[in-house]
Amino acid sequence: MKTICVDASRSYQVHIGQQLIPQAGTYIQKIHPVCKAAIISDSNVYPLFGKNLESSLLESGFSVISFVFTAGESSKNGKTYLEILNFLAENEITRSDLLIALGGGVVGDITGFAAATFLRGVSYVQIPTTLLAMVDSSVGGKTAIDLPAGKNLAGAFYQPSLVLCDLSTLDQLPQEVFSDGCAEVIKYGVLYDAALFAHLADNGLEFDRESVIARCVELKRNVVKEDEFDTGARQMLNLGHTIGHGIEKQSDFMISHGKAVAIGMAVVSKAAGAYGLCDSSIYLRICKVLDLFKLPKTTNYSAEALYISALSDKKRSGGTVNLIVPLEIGRCAIQKTSTNDVKSFIKAGL
Amino acid sequence: MKTICVDASRSYQVHIGQQLIPQAGTYIQKIHPVCKAAIISDSNVYPLFGKNLESSLLESGFSVISFVFTAGESSKNGKTYLEILNFLAENEITRSDLLIALGGGVVGDITGFAAATFLRGVSYVQIPTTLLAMVDSSVGGKTAIDLPAGKNLAGAFYQPSLVLCDLSTLDQLPQEVFSDGCAEVIKYGVLYDAALFAHLADNGLEFDRESVIARCVELKRNVVKEDEFDTGARQMLNLGHTIGHGIEKQSDFMISHGKAVAIGMAVVSKAAGAYGLCDSSIYLRICKVLDLFKLPKTTNYSAEALYISALSDKKRSGGTVNLIVPLEIGRCAIQKTSTNDVKSFIKAGL
Repeated sequence: MKTICVDASRSYQVHIGQQLIPQAGTYIQKIHPVCKAAIISDSNVYPLFGKNLESSLLESGFSVISFVFTAGESSKNGKTYLEILNFLAENEITRSDLLIALGGGVVGDITGFAAATFLRGVSYVQIPTTLLAMVDSSVGGKTAIDLPAGKNLAGAFYQPSLVLCDLSTLDQLPQEVFSDGCAEVIKYGVLYDAALFAHLADNGLEFDRESVIARCVELKRNVVKEDEFDTGARQMLNLGHTIGHGIEKQSDFMISHGKAVAIGMAVVSKAAGAYGLCDSSIYLRICKVLDLFKLPKTTNYSAEALYISALSDKKRSGGTVNLIVPLEIGRCAIQKTSTNDVKSFIKAGL
Repeated sequence: MKTICVDASRSYQVHIGQQLIPQAGTYIQKIHPVCKAAIISDSNVYPLFGKNLESSLLESGFSVISFVFTAGESSKNGKTYLEILNFLAENEITRSDLLIALGGGVVGDITGFAAATFLRGVSYVQIPTTLLAMVDSSVGGKTAIDLPAGKNLAGAFYQPSLVLCDLSTLDQLPQEVFSDGCAEVIKYGVLYDAALFAHLADNGLEFDRESVIARCVELKRNVVKEDEFDTGARQMLNLGHTIGHGIEKQSDFMISHGKAVAIGMAVVSKAAGAYGLCDSSIYLRICKVLDLFKLPKTTNYSAEALYISALSDKKRSGGTVNLIVPLEIGRCAIQKTSTNDVKSFIKAGL
């Protein structure tokens, strides 16, 4: 097991190891007095790990209630959020009780938001069960729900009290969902760590999960420490995301987040090469790794369509957009680009 | 005009004076760049002051959008909250824009919560239009919505960027609503300030509004500075509220908050006298002022009924409750009372 300590407005540990769910009660007891624990999970994940988690908590003396909602991004909305709040209120959860998010990014984001706002804040634990949630959403305290107008439009910055990444859960993930998470893992390599990138290039899907996830969490921890409230350095994490977001929207979210980010990284590194911001070999090296992870690199959407989808009306009307571009593997930069020039930039990357 | 500076996690000013709404644009411009301002108000208040506020903002160069919901506590719910969020999203409010709460406590609480959570936080200005909101909810950053299970069960601690208390709005308040706010004003006197209490006893409803409101804001500022996140000293503000809350619930909220708090203060000071915690003349002095302000002092609900309503099931099952009791006018104390003894205490105050 590896442990990463996060120092944000709240300090907490992220444990990464095998079979942590059956020991969850023991770990949670170390950071929180025994109380009523409310597990929030979804219809995919709860049947796999819910009972194990409950047993472990009960063994450690917690009392347990569970709320399970329909799996999928479409549940990450105001309705589910209010249902969770009502569930907590009806079960008389107090400020000294605890919420536990058991699931992927949707579960983590909505549970974190409920924890941030129920009684103006109760503690919560993240137990991410997807690779994407382990390396990205479960660490750093960005919680959210979607609104009809767009993703993650309401939420709070609210750090968990503990994160348990049980690697055993990854064995249950469909290959495609695992690959999806790999796009964010590759992103950390391109952004910050040439050695991580090299390990991924050498091992493909057989990478060392414990070390790689721990390294990604560590890298995310560093950027969150520098910019907890997302006013500067945290923007770097958007590598591949501006164009990726355009692809997701164009496809009406039929193309997954990970695949869209993979394509976004390919497009932006190709364009950066064409603009002379980095060597064009960077693009080729990124493509090679994306291939290895069975992730896509190209899209049929036009530069015009991606431009319109990626930038909201407001963003398109004058001003600049911060694009994240690779300078070399392991080092990227924020490229202030006038909105007028974004379309040509995308075109150069297609 | 008087100005009180609040130093919490965010520092801001509270201006108290006549005709501030027609100058709102000027004041807001001093603390926030010109942007899109979203006014949130209710169906009672918007027709009275909405257009004036909009004109002032437009004159100062802000663009303005307005959202008006049905007046009343029953609107302070998840549905209205989500409607406000959707309104902000549809109108593409960004993190550099501004929300403005124009109204009483319901408007201020729900707008503050929307501001705390839309895009994980946008700035907001409070323009309270009731005495209660001026001296209580608009200062200190407690934002909230009600859930079916109870009042203020979800929310956030989120400070405004500016508070404008326009005394002219008080002239439009029904006498009864004004009296209601007076209960909280009297509370500040009993809690912290014998001179304020004496001024109220000498002048009744003709008290000096500017000075008294400024003093109440200053007293609230002091306690918020000491305990922004409500883990200690801020509990003192609950004087009269535990029993008051029981009265509100027993009456199914037909008895207003101010009236319930007035009765709560009378009951608790009578009981404190009977228990020898303070001189019994304190109760008589408080009653005299409540009379002067046309506020009630007694209730027909039984000690048993109030006990059950005031304490939730959870609170009743063992443990202690912190009752706030007067020691003299201007000085109160937190009295840890075992839940078993609360009923007798209430009985002594009826």
